[in-house]
Amino acid sequence: MVDIATRVYNHKWKIDPIIRSLIDTDFYKLLMCQSIFRNSPDTVVRFSLINRSKDIKLAELIDENVLRMQLDYARSLKLSRGESTWLRGNMFYGKRQMFRPDFMEWFDNYQLPEYDLQVKDGQYELTFEGRWHEVMLWEIPALAILMELRSRAIVNQMRRFELQVLYARAMTRIWEKINALKDLEGLKIADFGTRRRHSHLWQDWCVQAMLEGLGDSAAGGAFTGTSNCLIAMRRDIEAVGTNAHELPMVYAALADTDEALKQAPYKVLADWHEEHDGNLRIILPDTYGTEGFLRDAPSWLAGWTGIRIDSGDPAPLAEAAIRWWESKGEDPRKKLVIFSDGLDVEEIRKLHGQFHGRVKCSFGWGTLLTNDFRGFVPDDGLAPFSLVCKAISANGKPTVKLSDNPNKAMGPLSEIDRYRRVFGIGQQIARDVIV
Amino acid sequence: MVDIATRVYNHKWKIDPIIRSLIDTDFYKLLMCQSIFRNSPDTVVRFSLINRSKDIKLAELIDENVLRMQLDYARSLKLSRGESTWLRGNMFYGKRQMFRPDFMEWFDNYQLPEYDLQVKDGQYELTFEGRWHEVMLWEIPALAILMELRSRAIVNQMRRFELQVLYARAMTRIWEKINALKDLEGLKIADFGTRRRHSHLWQDWCVQAMLEGLGDSAAGGAFTGTSNCLIAMRRDIEAVGTNAHELPMVYAALADTDEALKQAPYKVLADWHEEHDGNLRIILPDTYGTEGFLRDAPSWLAGWTGIRIDSGDPAPLAEAAIRWWESKGEDPRKKLVIFSDGLDVEEIRKLHGQFHGRVKCSFGWGTLLTNDFRGFVPDDGLAPFSLVCKAISANGKPTVKLSDNPNKAMGPLSEIDRYRRVFGIGQQIARDVIV
Repeated sequence: MVDIATRVYNHKWKIDPIIRSLIDTDFYKLLMCQSIFRNSPDTVVRFSLINRSKDIKLAELIDENVLRMQLDYARSLKLSRGESTWLRGNMFYGKRQMFRPDFMEWFDNYQLPEYDLQVKDGQYELTFEGRWHEVMLWEIPALAILMELRSRAIVNQMRRFELQVLYARAMTRIWEKINALKDLEGLKIADFGTRRRHSHLWQDWCVQAMLEGLGDSAAGGAFTGTSNCLIAMRRDIEAVGTNAHELPMVYAALADTDEALKQAPYKVLADWHEEHDGNLRIILPDTYGTEGFLRDAPSWLAGWTGIRIDSGDPAPLAEAAIRWWESKGEDPRKKLVIFSDGLDVEEIRKLHGQFHGRVKCSFGWGTLLTNDFRGFVPDDGLAPFSLVCKAISANGKPTVKLSDNPNKAMGPLSEIDRYRRVFGIGQQIARDVIV
Repeated sequence: MVDIATRVYNHKWKIDPIIRSLIDTDFYKLLMCQSIFRNSPDTVVRFSLINRSKDIKLAELIDENVLRMQLDYARSLKLSRGESTWLRGNMFYGKRQMFRPDFMEWFDNYQLPEYDLQVKDGQYELTFEGRWHEVMLWEIPALAILMELRSRAIVNQMRRFELQVLYARAMTRIWEKINALKDLEGLKIADFGTRRRHSHLWQDWCVQAMLEGLGDSAAGGAFTGTSNCLIAMRRDIEAVGTNAHELPMVYAALADTDEALKQAPYKVLADWHEEHDGNLRIILPDTYGTEGFLRDAPSWLAGWTGIRIDSGDPAPLAEAAIRWWESKGEDPRKKLVIFSDGLDVEEIRKLHGQFHGRVKCSFGWGTLLTNDFRGFVPDDGLAPFSLVCKAISANGKPTVKLSDNPNKAMGPLSEIDRYRRVFGIGQQIARDVIV
C-alpha cells in the first residue's frame, strides 16, 4: 500500500530542508547563548566559516542557490511550542529550569539573523555579524548545512542499490565500532557529532545505534547522551555539553591590556561559575595552551568537576591535569576528564585503558561517529573534512586561538605572536587535523 | 506520517505468510509440470523433504504449529488472474504461449495438495504423495518455507539495530560479490536461488541488486534473469530455467528392465525434444553419471543447445562436454554450458576464465547469492544448509539419484548398486555438499 499523503508531502518541498528545527543544534550553544545573553548582550561578534580542507572546493560542489535556499529556510524557523516546553521543563544534568524565563522569552521569538555569502577561490565565504548571542547560534546549522550539502552533492549521483549499500556499509562500520567498545568496563561516551555529521538522519541513526548497542547510562549502560537537543528530545535521552572556545576567544579579544588578556580565560570561567555547578563546571583549558592555563589558574578552579581535552596529544594533557589536581590537594579519582578531539575507537580504547579508574573518564565522540564514510566512494568524496565556524572578531577586534596544536591556531599572525608571549607558550607539537 | 492502514494491515495477519503466490516458484517446475501433465498424468509420486545437514535440528528450531500454518496458507493459494495472464501471455526464451491452454486451464484451478508432517529425531518428515504433476509443485514452496522459518527462528531473537546491521552486512556482502563480477567480459549470470533463499524479500532484493549492478542482459548487461516467476513478473525481467533431476529419476524408477532403465534418461530428453526447442534444450547429464551419459547418448542429443553442470568437479565435466561435442562434429563455441552447482564468486571467476570464448558460458547462481548470511550471527545460525525435496518413489518404486558426487547420491543401497552397474559408474570423487 502506498501512503499517498506521505508521498505527496515528500515531493511538495522545493528543497529538502537540512535544518528543520532551531534546537537541531548542540546543547552547549544554548547554554553559552544564555550566558552571553546575560553577561555580554551588546558585544558585536563576527563568525566566519573556515574550510581547513582547502582541496575540497565547496563552491564547486555545492550550487550557491541551493545553499542560499537552505540558509534561508533555517532563517524561517522559530522555536516550536513543544521545543520551548522541552527546554523550559526538561532536566539537564539533574537540574530543572536550566534555561531562565527571561532567556526563554527572548529565544521564543528568535530567528537566525542575516548572513553574508561570497564565493572566493572555489570556497564559500559565509559570515554572520551581529550581537554575539544572536549570531552565535548560526555556527552549528551553518556547518551542518554545508556538510550535508556536500554529502548530497556526492550521493545525488548514485543509483538506488549503490545508495542502499553505501548506507549498509556505513551502518556496518558504526555497529562494528560500537561492538568494539562494548567490553570497556565503566565506559562513558556521548555523541558530539552534530556539526560535521553526514546528515541529520544519519546522526539520528548513529545515536539510536549507540543507545541499543551500549545501553543508556541511566540504566547502567555506557551511552551518556547526545549534544544534539532535537535528537535528545525526540529519542528521550540526555542532552550533554558545557562550553566552548568562543567564550575565551571573545573575552580575550575584548581585553584592553596584556594583563586583562592573560586573565580573560579565567574571567570566562568565573562568569560560568556563577551560573552553573556540578557537571557543567568543566574546564576547557587549551584555547591559549593547557600548560600555562593550569600553571597560572586560580585555586578555586581546582574545585571544578573536570576538564575537557580538545586538542594536542590527549594522554600527556590528561596526565598534566592529574598532576595539577594532585598539586592542589584534589583527588583525581573524583574528577571528570572528557576527551573530545577527533576520537575514534582505537584512541578511545587506549585512553580508557590508561585513565579508567584513575579519573572519571568520559568521551565525546564526534565526526568519526556521525560522518565516517571514508573509503566508500571514488576519490573518497564522502570522507569527512575539517570545516569550522569561528568567532573571528569581537567589537571589531580580531580573535585568536592557539590551542595545543599549532595546526589549529587561528587569528592574525601579529596577534598570534602577542598571545603566545602573553600566555607563555613554548614549543608545541603539530598534529594533523583530520576533522 | 504513519500510514495507519498499512500498519493495521501488517498486524492483522495471524502469520506472516512466506509463500503468497503459486508462481513464487522456479520457472522450470512449471515447465516440467506441463510436460508431466501431458506425458505422465497418472504417475503417482512421493516427494520428501531431506535435510542433509543433520546437525541442524529443524523440529527444535521451528514450531510445528507455525510450520503447519505456513503450509496450510500455501495450500489456500490459487493462481491470480494477473499471474495466469502473465504465464499465458509472457514471452519466455523468445517464445509466446509457452504454456498450453489445456495446461493453463488445469493450473488456473490448481491448489497445492495435502501434505504429511511427522517429527523424527528432531527433524521434520514432510512428504507429499499424489499425482506427479500435482505434488511436484510442493518442492519449492516447501523448501522456501522451511528455509525462511529457520531464518526467522534466529532473527526473531535480534533487536532492532542488530537486525538492521545484519541486513546491512548481507547487502554489503552481495554488493561486493556483484562488483567482483563486473569486470568479467561477456559474463551471463542468472538467479537460481529460490529454494534455499534466506527469505522471499531478501531474494527479491538480491535480484534487483544484480539487475542494477550487472545490468539487464536485454540491454547488454550480464544479468540474464531469475528462476523465480513471481519476481520475474514483478520486476519485469526474464524467467529462466529448463529441467531437473526429477524427470530422469521418475522415468528411471518406472523402467521395468535394466535396458529400459539405461534408456530412461534419454527417453526424458526425447519427450522434452518434442515439446521444446532453442534455449530450453539443455542436457542435464549427471543424474546417473555424466561420463556414461555422454558416452552412450544418441547422436541427436549433440544437436541440443547446451548442457547444465550441477554436480561433481565442474571444469573437467565441461571439458568432457566440449570433447563430446567435438567428437560429434559440433562446434563447442555455439554450445551453452550452464554451471549451477553451489557457485560463488571465486568459482564463477575461475570457470569464466577457463571457458569464456570456448563455449557460450552461463551461470545459475543459487544459495550463495540468496542466502549468504555466513558468519553474521553466533554459532553461524543463519548459514545456509543443505535442504532438498526429492521424488523418492514413483508408482511405489523407489527412485535413485547418483549424480557426479557420491555425497549427493540417494535411494535404497541395493538400488544404488544396480543403477551403478547399469550406468557403468566407475570411481567417483566425493565433494562436500555445502548447499
